[in-house]
Amino acid sequence: MKKLLFLVLMALPFLSYAQTKPYLTLADAERITAAAEAKAKAEGWNVVIAILDDGGHLISLKRMDGVQIGSIEVAQAKAKSAVYFKRSSKVFEDAMKTEGGSKIATLPSAVGVEGGLPIFKDGIIVGSIGISGVTSAQDGIIAEAGVKGY
Amino acid sequence: MKKLLFLVLMALPFLSYAQTKPYLTLADAERITAAAEAKAKAEGWNVVIAILDDGGHLISLKRMDGVQIGSIEVAQAKAKSAVYFKRSSKVFEDAMKTEGGSKIATLPSAVGVEGGLPIFKDGIIVGSIGISGVTSAQDGIIAEAGVKGY
Amino acid sequence: MKKLLFLVLMALPFLSYAQTKPYLTLADAERITAAAEAKAKAEGWNVVIAILDDGGHLISLKRMDGVQIGSIEVAQAKAKSAVYFKRSSKVFEDAMKTEGGSKIATLPSAVGVEGGLPIFKDGIIVGSIGISGVTSAQDGIIAEAGVKGY
Amino acid sequence: MKKLLFLVLMALPFLSYAQTKPYLTLADAERITAAAEAKAKAEGWNVVIAILDDGGHLISLKRMDGVQIGSIEVAQAKAKSAVYFKRSSKVFEDAMKTEGGSKIATLPSAVGVEGGLPIFKDGIIVGSIGISGVTSAQDGIIAEAGVKGY
Repeated sequence: MKKLLFLVLMALPFLSYAQTKPYLTLADAERITAAAEAKAKAEGWNVVIAILDDGGHLISLKRMDGVQIGSIEVAQAKAKSAVYFKRSSKVFEDAMKTEGGSKIATLPSAVGVEGGLPIFKDGIIVGSIGISGVTSAQDGIIAEAGVKGY
Repeated sequence: MKKLLFLVLMALPFLSYAQTKPYLTLADAERITAAAEAKAKAEGWNVVIAILDDGGHLISLKRMDGVQIGSIEVAQAKAKSAVYFKRSSKVFEDAMKTEGGSKIATLPSAVGVEGGLPIFKDGIIVGSIGISGVTSAQDGIIAEAGVKGY
Repeated sequence: MKKLLFLVLMALPFLSYAQTKPYLTLADAERITAAAEAKAKAEGWNVVIAILDDGGHLISLKRMDGVQIGSIEVAQAKAKSAVYFKRSSKVFEDAMKTEGGSKIATLPSAVGVEGGLPIFKDGIIVGSIGISGVTSAQDGIIAEAGVKGY
Repeated sequence: MKKLLFLVLMALPFLSYAQTKPYLTLADAERITAAAEAKAKAEGWNVVIAILDDGGHLISLKRMDGVQIGSIEVAQAKAKSAVYFKRSSKVFEDAMKTEGGSKIATLPSAVGVEGGLPIFKDGIIVGSIGISGVTSAQDGIIAEAGVKGY
């Protein structure tokens, strides 16, 4: 009887877990942002750092001094593309180099410039990071540093 | 030792649960839609039924025959307002009747017409339903029938 | 003479009847969706299925569990392109592979990625289907299965 | 004569310096945000805190856990209204209570809900703060705490 109760109690959270999903907290977003910012400062690169949740909504954004204002939207667009399509915006950038690859430009919310990375937890998408301000390859390096900070 | 293992195992799912949130599946959305549609048919009302997830993104939409095409956007807008602001769009409708209540019209994504209801699980928002096609009071009745079907 | 007048008057409603167009009902959309969903499930592919009317407006949309949220917009965009231009979005995808084909990206509402198909009845366009979630070739297979279900 | 020329040449840079405007740095924005967040935490209120520059562009945004996602847009809209019109969004809220005050809703970028405040330095506008998440009066209290932190 005790064993049965034990098994039932053990199973409950897992049943519940089956209909739940992980998510990013503000503390997570700040840790990711700090890691990205540290890398940016170490390289002397000024950028916008945007962190989105799994629905593509801003959790935090930080614009370092002197960054072009266009990068505010670009960072968010890269991050949106990453979480909307569960893939790095570099995947689209590479695809756009292939024959007929300009078709990517006809997909709503897809951005074909490196610097947007999805963020996963246990294989489930929880959000994304978007960087803009330097070259797209450099933006990508900062984005990766951010994800590693998660 | 056994007891310690038991406690640790018991705690793990709850720790995990602390960083997870419930969500709507397509099966949930279809059950909610069926309940709303049954009520609409019983009343002889033709409507659009939109179900959104917790990020405000469509899980399903169904437009009954003969409904004005404007209701496609309206149903989605009501549902978006409900999940974005965690409250019935009727709350905004009522607020707009008070002195200076037209200020609601200046809030992005807020809709002040009945027919949008948030959907909660264990106190956590998981999505919303939006109805449009008949009078807003009737839309609200169908929306409620839908939520009860969850 | 009287008889002739009688015949002419009798014919009028039929002439008037000639000024109608066929259209998709919700029942049609659901049958098309079911055929597409059956194919998707048989292949183990999770997708968004959007059905539009001849004005490019949603009749129904269904998002299977786990599909990237970007596919919600993409499925609708492919379907819109198909009904707006009365051709498969694959026609534009192929055109974009030719020299200067990126010009397609400058056409409002045109999408150059397979997965959007127009739906005809007796040579008249009545709507479209849009699929997104797997590869564009796979999306196209599901779209075709849907049209066959009409 | 030589001495006069010398003095004129010396003065030029200062004349030129007079043609600058003060602006918010990221450090300023973070100090303002910290002051607002401290007040919000002290009251147990969860909000979105948006800081804009003098062009209405985001310098930083922070969303505390559990805040309705609609507040992300609303906080930015309030801040935009404050910097676009160099006045508190409460001024518009009050105006909307007067006869015909709903006209404010027809002004692009104007928001008539408390919680958006312009930020001035030496009488020159340098940016704004926008708060959303609790009641508009409470949002206003947090916004004021933020400005005081500047």
